[in-house]
Amino acid sequence: MKRLAPIIAGAIIMTTTSTEARQPTNEGRRFSPEQVRSVAPALEQYTQDRLYSDVWNRPGLSSRDRSLVTLAALIARGEAPELTQYADLAIESGVTPAEISEVITHLAYYSGWGKAMAAVGPVGEVFAKRGIEADQLPAIRPDPLPLDEKAEAQRAARVGEQFNTVAPGLVQYTTDYLFRDLWLRPDLKPRDRSLVTVAALISVGQVEQITYHLNRAMDSGLTEEQASEVITHLAFYAGWPNAMSALPVAKGVFEKRRN
Amino acid sequence: MKRLAPIIAGAIIMTTTSTEARQPTNEGRRFSPEQVRSVAPALEQYTQDRLYSDVWNRPGLSSRDRSLVTLAALIARGEAPELTQYADLAIESGVTPAEISEVITHLAYYSGWGKAMAAVGPVGEVFAKRGIEADQLPAIRPDPLPLDEKAEAQRAARVGEQFNTVAPGLVQYTTDYLFRDLWLRPDLKPRDRSLVTVAALISVGQVEQITYHLNRAMDSGLTEEQASEVITHLAFYAGWPNAMSALPVAKGVFEKRRN
Amino acid sequence: MKRLAPIIAGAIIMTTTSTEARQPTNEGRRFSPEQVRSVAPALEQYTQDRLYSDVWNRPGLSSRDRSLVTLAALIARGEAPELTQYADLAIESGVTPAEISEVITHLAYYSGWGKAMAAVGPVGEVFAKRGIEADQLPAIRPDPLPLDEKAEAQRAARVGEQFNTVAPGLVQYTTDYLFRDLWLRPDLKPRDRSLVTVAALISVGQVEQITYHLNRAMDSGLTEEQASEVITHLAFYAGWPNAMSALPVAKGVFEKRRN
Repeated sequence: MKRLAPIIAGAIIMTTTSTEARQPTNEGRRFSPEQVRSVAPALEQYTQDRLYSDVWNRPGLSSRDRSLVTLAALIARGEAPELTQYADLAIESGVTPAEISEVITHLAYYSGWGKAMAAVGPVGEVFAKRGIEADQLPAIRPDPLPLDEKAEAQRAARVGEQFNTVAPGLVQYTTDYLFRDLWLRPDLKPRDRSLVTVAALISVGQVEQITYHLNRAMDSGLTEEQASEVITHLAFYAGWPNAMSALPVAKGVFEKRRN
Repeated sequence: MKRLAPIIAGAIIMTTTSTEARQPTNEGRRFSPEQVRSVAPALEQYTQDRLYSDVWNRPGLSSRDRSLVTLAALIARGEAPELTQYADLAIESGVTPAEISEVITHLAYYSGWGKAMAAVGPVGEVFAKRGIEADQLPAIRPDPLPLDEKAEAQRAARVGEQFNTVAPGLVQYTTDYLFRDLWLRPDLKPRDRSLVTVAALISVGQVEQITYHLNRAMDSGLTEEQASEVITHLAFYAGWPNAMSALPVAKGVFEKRRN
Repeated sequence: MKRLAPIIAGAIIMTTTSTEARQPTNEGRRFSPEQVRSVAPALEQYTQDRLYSDVWNRPGLSSRDRSLVTLAALIARGEAPELTQYADLAIESGVTPAEISEVITHLAYYSGWGKAMAAVGPVGEVFAKRGIEADQLPAIRPDPLPLDEKAEAQRAARVGEQFNTVAPGLVQYTTDYLFRDLWLRPDLKPRDRSLVTVAALISVGQVEQITYHLNRAMDSGLTEEQASEVITHLAFYAGWPNAMSALPVAKGVFEKRRN
């Protein structure tokens, strides 16, 4: 029994971190509450009362999911300095270092290489502080998840028909690098990978791609309530206009799937 | 008379700062003229001759308004390091520290929390340099401005009808946090709050929301000439494409209001 | 013969830098390979195998053009810290310091003043390291390239008809500062200036202006294959969604020009 104790304790901690609502603390903040108050006292009050205490404790989306959504928003929007706070919070909320690593790699393709690279500095600080080593990070070439060959063939055919006469190289990379490689990496579940993609798209107002990726996310298990909370959460991190512009797109997706 | 002198002098200074055209100096610049010349001599010349001397002295929009518009553009676009120069210029142009504080708080909601937070560092430097203390900043919960209940009820009903089935949480926050709270904060006049909102939207190409907020700004006193100058000013700070994309939207608003 | 040798050697070097494919090395990188591996090992592997070795060696677009496109993307997207690597690579690939200087000045107008200014720091570092002095940079007021008066008059008339009633100041600046000045600066060839403009527009999702500027680029000599490779290249530096959103626009331009 003695050797089982830490394993059981670990299991309990896992359960705790993934179900109990966690909200941001002031740990790892770029600017302290005092600094913010010296410029905008109301902003600090709103940060504590509304953003941290209210938004993060809403039902409908777990702290873990909110952390993934927030990481995606910060990386996609070029707000990497905020990651010292939010990568730390993500780990506290049950996101593994391997998953954070995969989010960064994923967003190199979806938010641009430079935005992903900018995350290396602050996330590296958080990993170093917590003693996270290479053996906790995803393999470079892990065994891929199984592929739905039929669905992928249809997707590739559709994109090819549209754009093979414009940019055949990009069409080929989309197949080889994204859908037959990146999306099959096992260290971030397809549902979470889609969640991160949708959050990144909404965060920078790329509405054109939301329909495809929101449907894909919901096919992988994201519920309507969760998707709704993602948009509400992002109103704060990506600004009201980006959230409002996502609403008609989400409405279209929800209505089509209900019928 | 002796004790009145500084008060009168103060009044004269107030008048001066709000009516006389002020243009940027090199005070607080992120990169000195010499640094810019060592990379792009023409850019420095254009900065002095066109941006500082020409654009900022155009009639149709005061230096104070141009300062508010520029602050909004820099915050919305993630160019916070430029604020050491432009928050200083704003104060020289008659924008109060309380108003700058409100602009930052306002843009947390309209440009995303991280963009507002990034302004804390450089604006804090300017405030510290000028000895600006907490008593010059807005109260956390000031007495709100009166609300036009009928207009707000109509707005809320319209948004609710559209999106209550998609994201009821966001619809509720829009009412509670924005239109029944943020917009009623008295330390930034409704016309200026709208000016800042419109400038932020144009600066990042969020054209969908411009129609509503430009109309709201003009309902609060922004003239057509001023709106036109806002777009012209932003061509320089947000780039020509964002300004050009705002033109057809503004044209639609102007034409509808003229009839 | 003795005095001709260095001239011939120089000519050979010129030829080499402009035709041989060059790919990024780790020189001047913001984060070292070790730093990236400590956070996202797969990202570093993709960076080396896919981005550096594969994308940069694709036929259809020279390393010099890829460097111009990458500089434009980084500046337009506010990723100036990456320029210590890519301004250096640009010079290695045959882009002259004068051309880099012109790219920055050009993008002040097309990506906003702050984005161009942010490039001054890192590019200044590269210039200093290489001992590049003022005499290698463009004159402030060089003799302009000849103007196609008829085409420019048509452009000005078209824009004036649309927007003189909205923002006559901006319409006038577009003529005076852009098309009768900036575009006639001789230190960046019109084809390269258009290439940089198109790359900047695609990189931040400003699709509305792509049609005009892609046509202009192709009128100045950019081939369809090169334009296609620009979009493919930018999928990596600006993210897949921005590249995908450019495809239907490019398709429309290509098809119209083929007929």
